Amino acid sequence: MKQPPGYHTIEKAAKRIEQHINRTPVFKSENLNNLVKADIFFKCENFQKAGAFKTRGAVNAIFSFSNNEIINGVCTHSSGNHAAALARAAMLRKTKAYIVMPENSSHVKIEAVRNYNGIITFCKPNLKSREETLIKVKSKTKAIEIHPYNNFSIIAGQATAAKEFYEEVNNLDIIMAPVGGGGLLSGTALTTHYISPETKVIAAEPAGADDAYRSFYAKKFIPSENPNTIADGLLTSLGSLTYPIIQKYVHQIVTVSENAIIKAMRLIWERMKIIIEPSAAVPFAAILENKFDYRDKRIGIIISGGNIDLDKIPWL
Amino acid sequence: MKQPPGYHTIEKAAKRIEQHINRTPVFKSENLNNLVKADIFFKCENFQKAGAFKTRGAVNAIFSFSNNEIINGVCTHSSGNHAAALARAAMLRKTKAYIVMPENSSHVKIEAVRNYNGIITFCKPNLKSREETLIKVKSKTKAIEIHPYNNFSIIAGQATAAKEFYEEVNNLDIIMAPVGGGGLLSGTALTTHYISPETKVIAAEPAGADDAYRSFYAKKFIPSENPNTIADGLLTSLGSLTYPIIQKYVHQIVTVSENAIIKAMRLIWERMKIIIEPSAAVPFAAILENKFDYRDKRIGIIISGGNIDLDKIPWL
Repeated sequence: MKQPPGYHTIEKAAKRIEQHINRTPVFKSENLNNLVKADIFFKCENFQKAGAFKTRGAVNAIFSFSNNEIINGVCTHSSGNHAAALARAAMLRKTKAYIVMPENSSHVKIEAVRNYNGIITFCKPNLKSREETLIKVKSKTKAIEIHPYNNFSIIAGQATAAKEFYEEVNNLDIIMAPVGGGGLLSGTALTTHYISPETKVIAAEPAGADDAYRSFYAKKFIPSENPNTIADGLLTSLGSLTYPIIQKYVHQIVTVSENAIIKAMRLIWERMKIIIEPSAAVPFAAILENKFDYRDKRIGIIISGGNIDLDKIPWL
Repeated sequence: MKQPPGYHTIEKAAKRIEQHINRTPVFKSENLNNLVKADIFFKCENFQKAGAFKTRGAVNAIFSFSNNEIINGVCTHSSGNHAAALARAAMLRKTKAYIVMPENSSHVKIEAVRNYNGIITFCKPNLKSREETLIKVKSKTKAIEIHPYNNFSIIAGQATAAKEFYEEVNNLDIIMAPVGGGGLLSGTALTTHYISPETKVIAAEPAGADDAYRSFYAKKFIPSENPNTIADGLLTSLGSLTYPIIQKYVHQIVTVSENAIIKAMRLIWERMKIIIEPSAAVPFAAILENKFDYRDKRIGIIISGGNIDLDKIPWL
């Protein structure tokens, strides 16, 4: 694929992955709606297989290859959710997954990769070490690299979350996703452009890892330097494939404080009785911090995942 | 109602409450099924309005009265979930709810009652003080007492959870509920007797509050003495109306340790990404402790509620 996925490609991805993923439910909370005076729909990808939307892209990418192409397995670097999702998809495809993970990855995310028979190589927690370690793994194993977001098959897979969302909920004024590397956001923006162009796409990003925000408003790609946020899924910078899609099809990017992320996460746990990870709380945090015009709007929020170490609750 | 609710009464309750409650989803977890080698269906009453199944009984009881009958409001004593459910139902019925709560009730449960405009009177955390305080409140207000479980309208309301469960899932070998005062359990047992008599009803109870277990096997009503368990919804003893139904229609009662309750609760949080309260973890704890023959069975578990103080996570 040399071009961003078109609608037909996203449809094909949805069919390809259907039997290997959960069609996740859309939840509403009267209580949270009353609190913020908006009509919010939550697409619960925390209930996705392997606990995050990343399963969509990983399955789509791996099942796009022929048996022969994928015989030596796949490899990637990932801070967590893509790692588990890729390991699971490789297991389903009866091939191997070699995963490069930062040595400070959460215990829960490491265990998840191991449960799916992923073969882990640890590296230092920075992009340089991740990339160098991956090059070594790749040359040794001849596995195919599946980048966590800078890959059109991954983007097409992530785009299916918004597709299901629009199939279930009509007339959204706004759709929101968190942004890290931009796989979910670019997929969401493409789907919205194709099937619900009247819906505004608003991304939310931690202020401590605001490369997408800065890139978007500077209109040029500016990578992160020393990002720091509790939202460990959003530490990565945009990629060369995700950035242009986001620049073109996203309407607004807002940033949120760490306090708002924790507050949003806790409110969702308490009122909705669902476990979400900090990254997944970032869009609702933007509403709590009043970062855009949300009053009385119909807003769809993609809850990106629910993988969190239950020994480390951020408000305790 | 002088007799235990018949099937027609449970059907009427289901129609009466329909518009005021959530039809809660049934969740499955491949991961937990693999862990215990059984096929488990979870009826998620933690997603019920006010966060617990108690909403069913409270709405059914309050909407059974005429406007005139209910003009002075309703009153009750409750350690928490019935209190919030009754306050909410009274608000919907545009009448008042006077709630007697033990002074050690959890912060979250007190706040929930206040959010629904319930009028709270605190008492000592024992049955004697609860009953004495309620008598005072009742004589002062002329409100109708709605007992948390020893009331056939309440039992008929709670029975609707199992009704929905059987409408959604066929051929359950076993249905499980936790047992405290026995409202949910007696309702579940009646519904099972009427519409799925081939399904075995197994109740789970904390070993530290095992009056139902002891009563059931002694074949006489034995109230709790100094019950002590983290499952704060299950501290109460059976009632004169719930005990005979349980003795007649329940097949087995098992007890579980506090450790198993906490382990079960954490596993459900971690693997299913849902927040459940300790009381709701008691049936799955019985599986973890191997308390009955569950291997390869189709088991329905009613997750009773999700109201927990998020500042007090039991494993931290």
